[in-house]
Amino acid sequence: MSALQEISLNIRNMKQLEYSVLARRTNQIKDELKKGVKKSYREVIDVSWGDPHRAGVKPLSFVRQVLAACIYPQLMDGDKLMVDVKQRAQMLLRACPGGSVGSYCATAGVPEIVERVSEYITRRDGGVPSHPENIYISSGSQWALTNILKVLVNSEASPRTGVLTPVPCHSTTILSLMALGAEVVPYYLREEQGWALDVEELQRAWGSAKEVCNPVGLYVINPGNPAGYVQSRKSMQEVIRFAAEKRLFLLADEVYQDCVFGEETEFVSYKRALAEMGSPLSDTVELASFHTTSKGLMGECGLRAGYVELVNLDPAVMKHIYSLFSADSCAPVLGQFALDVMTNPPQPGDPSYPLYMKETQHIRTSVAENVRRVEEVINSLPGFSCQPVEGGAFAFPRVFLPPKAIETAKELGMKPDTFYCMRLLEEAGVLSSPGSEYGQQEGTYHIRFCIMTPSEIMEEILRRLSTFHKRFMNEFS
Amino acid sequence: MSALQEISLNIRNMKQLEYSVLARRTNQIKDELKKGVKKSYREVIDVSWGDPHRAGVKPLSFVRQVLAACIYPQLMDGDKLMVDVKQRAQMLLRACPGGSVGSYCATAGVPEIVERVSEYITRRDGGVPSHPENIYISSGSQWALTNILKVLVNSEASPRTGVLTPVPCHSTTILSLMALGAEVVPYYLREEQGWALDVEELQRAWGSAKEVCNPVGLYVINPGNPAGYVQSRKSMQEVIRFAAEKRLFLLADEVYQDCVFGEETEFVSYKRALAEMGSPLSDTVELASFHTTSKGLMGECGLRAGYVELVNLDPAVMKHIYSLFSADSCAPVLGQFALDVMTNPPQPGDPSYPLYMKETQHIRTSVAENVRRVEEVINSLPGFSCQPVEGGAFAFPRVFLPPKAIETAKELGMKPDTFYCMRLLEEAGVLSSPGSEYGQQEGTYHIRFCIMTPSEIMEEILRRLSTFHKRFMNEFS
Ligand SMILES: Cc1ncc(COP(=O)(O)O)c(C=O)c1O
Ligand SMILES: Cc1ncc(COP(=O)(O)O)c(C=O)c1O
Repeated sequence: MSALQEISLNIRNMKQLEYSVLARRTNQIKDELKKGVKKSYREVIDVSWGDPHRAGVKPLSFVRQVLAACIYPQLMDGDKLMVDVKQRAQMLLRACPGGSVGSYCATAGVPEIVERVSEYITRRDGGVPSHPENIYISSGSQWALTNILKVLVNSEASPRTGVLTPVPCHSTTILSLMALGAEVVPYYLREEQGWALDVEELQRAWGSAKEVCNPVGLYVINPGNPAGYVQSRKSMQEVIRFAAEKRLFLLADEVYQDCVFGEETEFVSYKRALAEMGSPLSDTVELASFHTTSKGLMGECGLRAGYVELVNLDPAVMKHIYSLFSADSCAPVLGQFALDVMTNPPQPGDPSYPLYMKETQHIRTSVAENVRRVEEVINSLPGFSCQPVEGGAFAFPRVFLPPKAIETAKELGMKPDTFYCMRLLEEAGVLSSPGSEYGQQEGTYHIRFCIMTPSEIMEEILRRLSTFHKRFMNEFS
Repeated sequence: MSALQEISLNIRNMKQLEYSVLARRTNQIKDELKKGVKKSYREVIDVSWGDPHRAGVKPLSFVRQVLAACIYPQLMDGDKLMVDVKQRAQMLLRACPGGSVGSYCATAGVPEIVERVSEYITRRDGGVPSHPENIYISSGSQWALTNILKVLVNSEASPRTGVLTPVPCHSTTILSLMALGAEVVPYYLREEQGWALDVEELQRAWGSAKEVCNPVGLYVINPGNPAGYVQSRKSMQEVIRFAAEKRLFLLADEVYQDCVFGEETEFVSYKRALAEMGSPLSDTVELASFHTTSKGLMGECGLRAGYVELVNLDPAVMKHIYSLFSADSCAPVLGQFALDVMTNPPQPGDPSYPLYMKETQHIRTSVAENVRRVEEVINSLPGFSCQPVEGGAFAFPRVFLPPKAIETAKELGMKPDTFYCMRLLEEAGVLSSPGSEYGQQEGTYHIRFCIMTPSEIMEEILRRLSTFHKRFMNEFS
């Protein structure tokens, strides 16, 4: 089982060392640029994170107007704000004790908002009922995930608690799992099949895990991060059957549910897929589904609001979960308001609807165009290959590094893909992150970069990346 | 040592059962009032929490204007906002990636804000240096405290890890300690001496704890919650010497540092007191000090921002702390902005200064008046006694419950003080919380209520409380 540990270790080291090497160098370069040092670029483009605003995407006006009105209600006195902005702000403020965003609210969130999130889920899932008492709003979805993992993972258990985890995987989750003392049990997504989740691979992972730990959970990310796949209903059904058979708790990280780009691609929630499968599965499989304001068209990462919906949990466990969430008193109220808007955007006929549509359509169109261009450009470069990006916020192309580049990296004491990212940063001023931060099949190398950018910026990135990549491949061939 | 466990259990039960009994009844009463049921009051006044806005205190304009401008920068185009509001907003937005509050920031907080918080601490402490790398901004101070407790408490240790904890004590901390598997080692504050912290009592607590656990930490709240004491420098010096002698990590919960009402009372931070004591103490005693935007004149609980400053910690421990904080990615950015304003309010000469002064003076004056009136009224009532409220956000008077009331409570299966609070709620429409939620000397009973209210509301509370209390004492005498 050393492969497991190696990935865990790699990821831990990456996060603490390799990526921070890149981040530190970025800061130095920025300072050098400020001081007038000449480079082939005027500024560093940072696409190493998943936050759209950092990459230049504009916030949605309706969201910001509602929040501004809630923060400073005097703004509603004038006639600058649309009537639906004012109505929304008034409704939200009425739900706060003392009518202020400055008051604590209930542990699970402002009850009215929890209710509206629940109604949204029911609509999203074509009528599959959602119950407010199963929803916890938290300071970002990551915190909700950590809390649910706390329930699953017994740090004192022997053998250790295992959680099946995709490779590649959003690295913060792996860090959370390790911090809780869980065994990260990797299952590999099939890159050549568009990063498909294959049940045979789950079986293999489960079988090998049984020797060293007690697997209790199965973590899936759909749509994916870092790889931009969107699971089909059929694949989800297989996963659900597998989870039922092995009695695994399903952790469905669905934060990118509104980020689906493929024309024929559709997001289906695990909750809906489960409900459609009917009894006994639909009454027994334990499921936690996560969502957030950080992603999607809104991209409000800095507000810190997400939620988890729990399905088929034992009431005693639900009580324990309540006490875990109450340790943080409550999620930021303004983030919760953004969650309200995310799940209840302006509707046709509302005064803010036209602008809202214009802005969201613009983001949708640019990102779809970005995705098309990324695939086109990268797949036309030698030694570079990008699976279709159907959803999520990232491209995760594979770089076929020449042996000489790998050797040079090793001589420098760097992971080969970190070396590639470092050179890309140094020579082209593009900050991406190395695949080794997320885990990858041994001997394969990837880079990850955010695709939620304005189109001009993506064109600039692709221009810089192409020139750099060709030179790099030449240098080491 | 059963007393320890009893308090822990009491508090756990209180939080989960007794207070929620009160909260549930409050909701029912509100519904009844809406439906037109006649009561001696038109609405319930909720002073069971510590949030000023809930109790009717108005948010500070400067804070809200800056936040609104940051959220919706178009507001800065017009001439509605003062120039210092715009300047502050621009400065804060420049510190955010992509110039948006919607971006993630660094784990420890927006670096520029961390820097300014550090400068504030240096000013506050008369020049004792503060270093930005020792400060972590978090989603509320409670989360920072929980993270630091995680470092101290080894849940698998045998004997268990102990933390000396005041009685009475802010209940969330006790819940956090219990959730982490720590032994809560109570030390009793001396009510008759204005809730003084007595080193002999610390010695006693430490001695008794040594039999059952390994005490590693000493938690102090100054100014206090629920009891409104403010520690003297001399008392703090004794505590520091005790901590040094027993090699205890000092956890200084100083969230009420701006809430000091006594005319001759002054807040001194533990960090300053420690520095003033000189070497070797000042270089060795490990200290964590907590502060928040939730308290003080700002009272922005719903924004969720606080910080911890760490002193004399081992670099390896600091690294571990970094990884704990990184699990939550970052604190809400708008909360961090509020922290910037709290630590750097408008200065004389700034356009917003006059209004800022007027608003803050108004809060100061009302609260000082509230405190005076609370002491006066309560101490004039039979079987009621209130120690001087020098700081914090609460009054915590002692109720001398008649034996008959205690019996009746027991028959109803309620804690006697919960029974008192329930009757106060039922008959007078005032929601307070029972002393048993915070721990109290056996055989003593208290109620806690927030004193950060507009003066008219405090007068109404005192009117209702006086009438009720006299009737209650008569009924059971
Ligand atoms: C798959 C996945 N889950 C969770 C998160 C955390 O998001 P939040 O900001 O809601 O904590 C991210 C953020 O990048 C993510 O990619
Ligand atoms: C003593 C004490 N510490 C910490 C807190 C938590 O405050 P925050 O909102 O910063 O988490 C409170 C809140 O009431 C408190 O009374």
